[in-house]
Amino acid sequence: MDNFSFYSPTYFAFGKDSENQAGQLVKRFGGSKVLLHFGGGSVIRTGLLDRVKKSLEAEGIAYIELGGVKPNPRSGLVYQGIEICRKENVDFVLAVGGGSTIDSSKAIAAGTIYDGDFWDFYMGKRIEKALPVGTVLTISAAGSEGSPDSVITKEDGMFKRGASGDAIRPKFSILNPALTQTLPPYQTACGVTDIMAHLYERYLTNTKEVEVTDRLIEALLLTMKKEGARAVAEPDNYEARANVMWAGMMAHNNSCGVGRSQDWNSHNIEHELSALYDCAHGAGLAMTMPAVFRYVVKHDVMRFAQVATRVWGCQMNFADPEKTALEGIDRLQQFLISIGMPSKFADIGAKEEDIPKLVDVLCNGDGRTGSISGFVTLNEEDCTKIYQMMV
Amino acid sequence: MDNFSFYSPTYFAFGKDSENQAGQLVKRFGGSKVLLHFGGGSVIRTGLLDRVKKSLEAEGIAYIELGGVKPNPRSGLVYQGIEICRKENVDFVLAVGGGSTIDSSKAIAAGTIYDGDFWDFYMGKRIEKALPVGTVLTISAAGSEGSPDSVITKEDGMFKRGASGDAIRPKFSILNPALTQTLPPYQTACGVTDIMAHLYERYLTNTKEVEVTDRLIEALLLTMKKEGARAVAEPDNYEARANVMWAGMMAHNNSCGVGRSQDWNSHNIEHELSALYDCAHGAGLAMTMPAVFRYVVKHDVMRFAQVATRVWGCQMNFADPEKTALEGIDRLQQFLISIGMPSKFADIGAKEEDIPKLVDVLCNGDGRTGSISGFVTLNEEDCTKIYQMMV
Repeated sequence: MDNFSFYSPTYFAFGKDSENQAGQLVKRFGGSKVLLHFGGGSVIRTGLLDRVKKSLEAEGIAYIELGGVKPNPRSGLVYQGIEICRKENVDFVLAVGGGSTIDSSKAIAAGTIYDGDFWDFYMGKRIEKALPVGTVLTISAAGSEGSPDSVITKEDGMFKRGASGDAIRPKFSILNPALTQTLPPYQTACGVTDIMAHLYERYLTNTKEVEVTDRLIEALLLTMKKEGARAVAEPDNYEARANVMWAGMMAHNNSCGVGRSQDWNSHNIEHELSALYDCAHGAGLAMTMPAVFRYVVKHDVMRFAQVATRVWGCQMNFADPEKTALEGIDRLQQFLISIGMPSKFADIGAKEEDIPKLVDVLCNGDGRTGSISGFVTLNEEDCTKIYQMMV
Repeated sequence: MDNFSFYSPTYFAFGKDSENQAGQLVKRFGGSKVLLHFGGGSVIRTGLLDRVKKSLEAEGIAYIELGGVKPNPRSGLVYQGIEICRKENVDFVLAVGGGSTIDSSKAIAAGTIYDGDFWDFYMGKRIEKALPVGTVLTISAAGSEGSPDSVITKEDGMFKRGASGDAIRPKFSILNPALTQTLPPYQTACGVTDIMAHLYERYLTNTKEVEVTDRLIEALLLTMKKEGARAVAEPDNYEARANVMWAGMMAHNNSCGVGRSQDWNSHNIEHELSALYDCAHGAGLAMTMPAVFRYVVKHDVMRFAQVATRVWGCQMNFADPEKTALEGIDRLQQFLISIGMPSKFADIGAKEEDIPKLVDVLCNGDGRTGSISGFVTLNEEDCTKIYQMMV
């Protein structure tokens, strides 16, 4: 196991009606004037935004609203949020929504008290400080509610890039599984896929002797296999939603990813798809994961055989472990298809002729020099073949 | 799943040589004058205490030493520590040792800035504030490095009782697995048993639909089965020690115990054994767990059958699930015996004729009225039978 540090100081309020604690929690963590950041109509339609406002008002906390966050959140709205926060002396950013809203809030929180362009952080600059951020989560997926990460798409060039830092970890996150019961099956399935990808990206490691984190990741994958499928089939099922919600947080706060190298190639290869075609991140991952895994399976057959037997219930083929490894990848893909996820380029409107452009931006964009690295280093030829496997 | 809140803001520095970060971390969390609290000779003999002092000195942090913590830490030394901290205006308590030293440090930290008797907290009073506490852990067992809990034995009457509160959660914990390599197999096994007990006490729940936490607990039990046994058999094995160390923290910071009722009867029944006979807590748990589990198995046969199949590799007996449930308990006990743990009263010098006294203190001490409650409520007759099963 590698040396590491782990710090996850987010306060989680989990359960029914927990959004009514928003005002108290903003106060507890020092907020007095809030940027209330959200996406489209659903948080208004369901009355959630009103309940959160009421909770803020009950504590005498002022707020300014900024809606309009879109999936794959854009830099334009971040610049707008930063301007508002500076002009209005906002001291707390409260995200009401899913991963996109939270990521946009984190970017605003870091950018407001930074002299330069916030995009610097997404080009690798260390985030030293930020306004405090809180969240009221409405979809289990990105894990941004418990993570130090944020992913933003720069409109000029449609680059999708991530930034990270303890300063943008939420001070609190309100997790009410009932808020996710209104999500349609497709969006639920995208979230389930994203959570499973966060687990696989940590599972694929070159670090030896990591039984504890292997077992924890497998535990969460087993949970998603059962409860993720149930949440898609029975959107109203509170218990399934609750299990998925805690699993989604645990999958990405990194308690199960410490002390080991991680992968993230499937995420990087996907980011170009959702940046170019604006497809759901989860939908893109449902295609990139099986392709990447089949492409790299020989790099560590036993690791893929282990997850195949422990999570997917495959019988170990001791004469030919690669067969077991591949069977596990097949079962993962069958599972993703069974919950309604795409498996081919055409399903998300992607085009084979775009592959050279996808590969070029992926391998040469933003300072990369011809390859991406993770579990395996993949050059332009590798990435071309991987995209072709999805056609 | 039940509603819950979860807050685990401890900073973990994990890995080789991490004790050299002690000074920087005390400074980061606001300490300038430290009570350096420890147990016996081993932290001196191994040079650990010297390395920690050097690290404090490098940051210009003053310290006062207080050694002498014993297993099952006593109230007497806590009173002494409180007096020193008050007299010397100490602003940070740094524990260098195992669970006993950490628990004693937490009690001192809470007692120093409390007007009344610190024992009030162990009689149920809420801990509102405390001096900040940091830890340098030397044994994987109690989980106190990441928990809000402390257990102290009151010398007057030998009552062993616990207190809990976010204010006594360590600000940081330094986890260097190499520091545990000097532990002999018996002490290692006691720690492994304690960690497994923290998992079982959470596993035995009356809350339904808790797949995510069930799976996480099973993951950590599977880790202990493999890596715990390996750490006992190969004390010098850094990798086994590292896996056990992270599993021990995760087992007790409650991320795998949220949203569900818990048990803790095995701990309560054990506490009377270690209070009266001063045996190792883990050794006592190795006896109480199998006895309690066999006694209550009919309360939820399927729960015991689940852990038997998922963790202990038993084949499910679909015609008679209780057989599987009992086989799982047998395998747990065989495992504990295999790592050198006791199974009978005589092994720890306990006497059958003491049972009425044990039961009386257990069920009627400190405000209890004839029973203890957890997974199942156990009255004096039940507890008598359970102790008799260990004779």
